[in-house]
Amino acid sequence: MSVRIGLVGLGTIARAQHLPAIADTDGVTLAAIASRNAALDNVPCHRDIVALLAAEDAVNAISLCTPPQGRFDQAMAALRAGRHLMLEKPPGATLSEVHALADEAARRGLTIFATWHSREAAAVQAARDWLATRNLEKVRIDWCEDVRKWHPGQDWVWRAGGLGVFDPGINALSILTALVPGVLLTGADLHIPQGRETPIAADLGLRAGDTVIDAHFDWRQQGDELWRIRFDTDDGSLTLDQGGAVATVDGQPLAQGENREYARLYARFRDLVAAGESEVDLAPLRLVSDAFLTGTPHVTEPFTE
Amino acid sequence: MSVRIGLVGLGTIARAQHLPAIADTDGVTLAAIASRNAALDNVPCHRDIVALLAAEDAVNAISLCTPPQGRFDQAMAALRAGRHLMLEKPPGATLSEVHALADEAARRGLTIFATWHSREAAAVQAARDWLATRNLEKVRIDWCEDVRKWHPGQDWVWRAGGLGVFDPGINALSILTALVPGVLLTGADLHIPQGRETPIAADLGLRAGDTVIDAHFDWRQQGDELWRIRFDTDDGSLTLDQGGAVATVDGQPLAQGENREYARLYARFRDLVAAGESEVDLAPLRLVSDAFLTGTPHVTEPFTE
Repeated sequence: MSVRIGLVGLGTIARAQHLPAIADTDGVTLAAIASRNAALDNVPCHRDIVALLAAEDAVNAISLCTPPQGRFDQAMAALRAGRHLMLEKPPGATLSEVHALADEAARRGLTIFATWHSREAAAVQAARDWLATRNLEKVRIDWCEDVRKWHPGQDWVWRAGGLGVFDPGINALSILTALVPGVLLTGADLHIPQGRETPIAADLGLRAGDTVIDAHFDWRQQGDELWRIRFDTDDGSLTLDQGGAVATVDGQPLAQGENREYARLYARFRDLVAAGESEVDLAPLRLVSDAFLTGTPHVTEPFTE
Repeated sequence: MSVRIGLVGLGTIARAQHLPAIADTDGVTLAAIASRNAALDNVPCHRDIVALLAAEDAVNAISLCTPPQGRFDQAMAALRAGRHLMLEKPPGATLSEVHALADEAARRGLTIFATWHSREAAAVQAARDWLATRNLEKVRIDWCEDVRKWHPGQDWVWRAGGLGVFDPGINALSILTALVPGVLLTGADLHIPQGRETPIAADLGLRAGDTVIDAHFDWRQQGDELWRIRFDTDDGSLTLDQGGAVATVDGQPLAQGENREYARLYARFRDLVAAGESEVDLAPLRLVSDAFLTGTPHVTEPFTE
């Protein structure tokens, strides 16, 4: 069965990642678009998801690339119209929302896929295989980037619900929870610029059994990004770098490859639809929620764009 | 099969509620105690749960009345020793913790029961029955008490992770989510005293389908407590008052009764153990987490005891 996608939201991530990934994936086709401001040639374009669902009976799946804050009503509309559903990360503005969507999909026998694109980075599977035969002692996450480069002028990231530095940091947590089972938060320090509502940096203490995990997320990075996770085991250290694209063991190359994150997500979505299954792993968003619930806030110097 | 309880933590809630409830419940007996500072006559007493588990083979279930911050390791120790587990509200300091406990219990075929005592208040079932045949239009929650009366000198409620006014407020959310399915948070204002880390008051916007729900939690109440939920339907208004002990419809009495909250919890625990089932409903803690994740913080005047 072919998955005929209605893509909702035609921003940066849709154009840079979703469109080429859909074009590259067998059994998945772009059937329609919904976007308030943009259009594509040769594809039916609608103003919003309501118009798309009403007009496009042949669309059997919706992929949502809109910001998480307004996504719930769109997602519920898709499910109520009997369409399968794929969600960009994070899958919703709140955990309760995503539970409600998963329940609705289950009731209707539809597929829902809450994606975590970083889990599909080129070297993540090799890291999983390498770690499987070793005892993990310590993990260190450094996830640092320049917010002015990655979110220029995006005021919403600083408003309550925008997640702040957890917007990129949740990618690290998605890789961590895919490779290490049973991760718990033990403490968090949230550094919030004066006059803003979300953290510009965060330090998390985590653990998984006896494994100690430290994470440092920082949006004040100057120069190149640092998206790195280091796993220390009883038999060497593995470093995942460049957001999971490259793995080295004690400095020697283990794996790397071209970026096929979104193509893998669409292939997985196709397979889930074919199997009549769903995948909603909320562990990364749960850890972020735990950090907001129990973290200690600290006021830092004002951030100006 | 008899449930032979090891009670961990012998503070106010244990003495006022758990001990009499256990004594009142058929098929449930108090077999041992763990407490650092206190002891009971005629019951084996241990310094901590590790000593209790090592010494008391006949204890087949643990009931935890210790504060949620340190509860995870105790809970995991109980499950790993093959004992069923009953948890006071809230069931953990974080959502991830409780998921890990539920997974562990399922792996071992043990019962875990995350209790919400307010759901067992005398008039809650009558309210559920009354609401079942009506269309709910609007809900208003007022949950106001004097923190100086209910948490005198308890500094931990003001530290990150202590939940602040959500410590009582989660009781209201536990009743709400038991009576109304699909509750989502739409916005939150968190009022945090200068120099403290948790809210002294909170205003939540929620919804369930088209039903609009407002909640006001406040620890600055003077005089009597106000623990009230009002349900407006297309066929009259029901008010649950006194924390769920009393229900009135348009001012006329509908139901009330003596407080049997904890006796009902222990009877339910006994039945869950007998049936080999578990009950872990995280909806109330999820809504609190959603409020911390997406709520707007406001600094209010300092609180002094």
